[in-house]
Amino acid sequence: MLKGYTVPLSPQGKSAGTPPPPWHYSSDCIAIEYWANPDAVAALLPPGLSPDAKSAGRAFFWFLDWQFTSENDELTDPARYQYREAFILIDAVYSGKPVSYCPYIFVDNEAAIGRGWAQGYPKRHGSIFQTRTFSAPSAAAAPLAPGSRFGASVSAHGERIATARLQLETKVPDPATVFNRPTTMRRYFPQLVASRQNQPAVDELTLSLTDNLAIVDVWAGSAELSIPVVPGEDVHSLAPQRVGRGYRLGMAYSVTDLQILKNYLA
Amino acid sequence: MLKGYTVPLSPQGKSAGTPPPPWHYSSDCIAIEYWANPDAVAALLPPGLSPDAKSAGRAFFWFLDWQFTSENDELTDPARYQYREAFILIDAVYSGKPVSYCPYIFVDNEAAIGRGWAQGYPKRHGSIFQTRTFSAPSAAAAPLAPGSRFGASVSAHGERIATARLQLETKVPDPATVFNRPTTMRRYFPQLVASRQNQPAVDELTLSLTDNLAIVDVWAGSAELSIPVVPGEDVHSLAPQRVGRGYRLGMAYSVTDLQILKNYLA
Amino acid sequence: MLKGYTVPLSPQGKSAGTPPPPWHYSSDCIAIEYWANPDAVAALLPPGLSPDAKSAGRAFFWFLDWQFTSENDELTDPARYQYREAFILIDAVYSGKPVSYCPYIFVDNEAAIGRGWAQGYPKRHGSIFQTRTFSAPSAAAAPLAPGSRFGASVSAHGERIATARLQLETKVPDPATVFNRPTTMRRYFPQLVASRQNQPAVDELTLSLTDNLAIVDVWAGSAELSIPVVPGEDVHSLAPQRVGRGYRLGMAYSVTDLQILKNYLA
Amino acid sequence: MLKGYTVPLSPQGKSAGTPPPPWHYSSDCIAIEYWANPDAVAALLPPGLSPDAKSAGRAFFWFLDWQFTSENDELTDPARYQYREAFILIDAVYSGKPVSYCPYIFVDNEAAIGRGWAQGYPKRHGSIFQTRTFSAPSAAAAPLAPGSRFGASVSAHGERIATARLQLETKVPDPATVFNRPTTMRRYFPQLVASRQNQPAVDELTLSLTDNLAIVDVWAGSAELSIPVVPGEDVHSLAPQRVGRGYRLGMAYSVTDLQILKNYLA
Repeated sequence: MLKGYTVPLSPQGKSAGTPPPPWHYSSDCIAIEYWANPDAVAALLPPGLSPDAKSAGRAFFWFLDWQFTSENDELTDPARYQYREAFILIDAVYSGKPVSYCPYIFVDNEAAIGRGWAQGYPKRHGSIFQTRTFSAPSAAAAPLAPGSRFGASVSAHGERIATARLQLETKVPDPATVFNRPTTMRRYFPQLVASRQNQPAVDELTLSLTDNLAIVDVWAGSAELSIPVVPGEDVHSLAPQRVGRGYRLGMAYSVTDLQILKNYLA
Repeated sequence: MLKGYTVPLSPQGKSAGTPPPPWHYSSDCIAIEYWANPDAVAALLPPGLSPDAKSAGRAFFWFLDWQFTSENDELTDPARYQYREAFILIDAVYSGKPVSYCPYIFVDNEAAIGRGWAQGYPKRHGSIFQTRTFSAPSAAAAPLAPGSRFGASVSAHGERIATARLQLETKVPDPATVFNRPTTMRRYFPQLVASRQNQPAVDELTLSLTDNLAIVDVWAGSAELSIPVVPGEDVHSLAPQRVGRGYRLGMAYSVTDLQILKNYLA
Repeated sequence: MLKGYTVPLSPQGKSAGTPPPPWHYSSDCIAIEYWANPDAVAALLPPGLSPDAKSAGRAFFWFLDWQFTSENDELTDPARYQYREAFILIDAVYSGKPVSYCPYIFVDNEAAIGRGWAQGYPKRHGSIFQTRTFSAPSAAAAPLAPGSRFGASVSAHGERIATARLQLETKVPDPATVFNRPTTMRRYFPQLVASRQNQPAVDELTLSLTDNLAIVDVWAGSAELSIPVVPGEDVHSLAPQRVGRGYRLGMAYSVTDLQILKNYLA
Repeated sequence: MLKGYTVPLSPQGKSAGTPPPPWHYSSDCIAIEYWANPDAVAALLPPGLSPDAKSAGRAFFWFLDWQFTSENDELTDPARYQYREAFILIDAVYSGKPVSYCPYIFVDNEAAIGRGWAQGYPKRHGSIFQTRTFSAPSAAAAPLAPGSRFGASVSAHGERIATARLQLETKVPDPATVFNRPTTMRRYFPQLVASRQNQPAVDELTLSLTDNLAIVDVWAGSAELSIPVVPGEDVHSLAPQRVGRGYRLGMAYSVTDLQILKNYLA
């Protein structure tokens, strides 16, 4: 009997890239609200999503330091289960309701790539960093306090994809005023048989389901964001035309399920 | 119109993890023939493959330095398209014919993970190295000549999965005497919807198709191989009970197609 | 006019591996108290240090997630100035006073290597991880509370050097009861001129000076530590014969100076 | 008795960052001849070197895939002793003789950093890649033949420092017509004692001594080179104003000694 939620399958199931759900996560996050070219945003939406006319190209660039665990104390093996991530969420409309859609995402950990592909996050490998808050007081501590400065960056293949800066100003009492759209994704897996290379084996519009979502310690402040031109990458099409507020927060949730909004192959 | 053979899909298609086929490869390889516990080999075979009774647990541990290109001179962007790989091939029988099956494989490049999953290679991220042959004469050059010593290793998450050593003795005039089994794999992609987490979306037994296969400069010699116990990994179940000959060779082929031997979901 | 505290020197001084002092640091730390073979501890001490007979081989294995800044908001460039570290401190006596000495240390950042060599820390490159505490509540959050479990590891060249586990039990009201020895190091830089390869250019016993030292949020608990045999490494000589308490804490300080205890070349 | 050519010193001497000399090297190299702003070249020269008026800012940007061994078959441990490197050599004059000087150099291996610092190479950590030549014929093989295309790149901290391209045209019968200047460096090690932070402990102008130098299989062709502006780096001051020929070659030598041209502290 071979076991494994993702490959490789083995009799013991330990070698699988990721343990099976439930997946529990906690993170520190930097998120920069900004506005990209609305046409570029629209061009990235999959069938079934339409541009949000009121949003005028609004997007968030997120940087996340994650810790993961399943049911077996995986968090005590941080070399495998701790990771850093960066992604963009663009505003869209699904069935008349405002949603976010994730066109680009980078992580530095294979288990996170496997879980992401299963959900519909189009994950690639990158190198991601964000300034952290430490409790021991120092010029290097970046406390959660007015005036604290944070930076964040994501690179892939030795090219800088994006760089952000944030200076904290005020605490945000109600996170729901900022982060209030469910996230949609495109779950996609190709075929390689010569006659079917243009027909994916899996092609679905999905909705992220996050149990026990907690958003804590949200601070807002002034922000900068750059998304330079990089050969071999399209992320620059979502470069900022205007940058809004930056946020620094903690976020946790569990994943045990996924909603399929649309099966493009049906 | 969104383009991309693998995610992410984008209007320009440049951000996709890998360009679409054809995929052209050339490599330097170290392969160690060895015998593992036949029961452990049998326990890793997917439905439709049976143990090769004559093989008595025979396997090859491969280490490969790859260069990849598609149609757009990708080989001139080595930071993206050069990679290192290590995998095990175990002997098996499919429909009465001797084949190899790949239970474990590690690469250091995301594009290679995406192409691998599309084929059925159960790729995970690792750190792989092999001694190279250089043309400028030196004690460090490891020429293709009797007495030259080579080493190779694969690690994942900072744990050593396997280490090999090889000392060249003689050139092998006919590679087909050594490398003569087609490679089978299990193409597998899970679902995350709560009620279907035990029913993969894709589950197929596949056969690798390699156009223009070239195997050159094959040398054989004495070999050593260790596959230590590593927490969180099952590869040690295929640890060597006996080590045979080691080989150092060049190999090239192109991939444009895949054969589905069996759809487990049909 | 060429500038740079460490190489490379350049007219603008930006390319130097590290900015000049003052260096400000804040960190999260896991430290495991343990006892190694007293003879192995003694064998690592440089001239001028003697074994601490009362310590009977006592050592601490530290894992640290650091954030660094100098005078120019370096902490907002975390891809350069955030790093992870692991080191061993062994008990010793200098001029009749109890001190610690650092025989082995690994970091994942070149700027940290440059600063370390300037001080006397014998830094090498490694891959280091520790479980982090996150504020958003989750099974993955590892809060600072009784029962929370932490792990930590250090690897070099794809071999695991050490792995630790810690389960929090109680808060430690006075850190000085645990961490109370100044740290000594050997500052050493070799020569390559053929006749002087056995005479270093710099060889000093140094004492770390830490301004504004802050140790906060110290928790103690039960601990595990393993330091396996690794080919090409000597760290295993300090493997634990007995493991004591584990600690999780925050630590910050600034470095602006160094004390030379002894110049071995004078 | 503590042993080690570089730190850390240990009773067995295995943990030292690098084995002691002799050091034997073999490599594949891409070198791009180009002309930078002559004032920028002059501004990087240390005391004792003067600009080469005939050179008008001439420089070479090198990319090297190295294999290293000392006396104990280190080349069979490629995870430790294989590495990639990129550096710039600028034309200069020392005592009336034409020489090269190395202002910037990046490697991906700590042992190479330690050996480099001992010689005077101002090494920092980077990520370096070059297209390789493989013997198995394929569109991915990049053979040493007219029309073959190569690429190379170096990145640090996720920022691209330089990118090069080369298309082979002709074999170069006599390498001495191209590569004929000895290499000078500045050997430099700082102090941290507060009163002496502007007085290095070691500050010497050195000359690289390469025993048994072999330069083989030299090909020349058309080349491209870019050195973009990168925050926190000065390498762009040497950006190309004009690019000359590109070269692809093999090079080997041994290092057993170093010549001190000038002790700046004497």
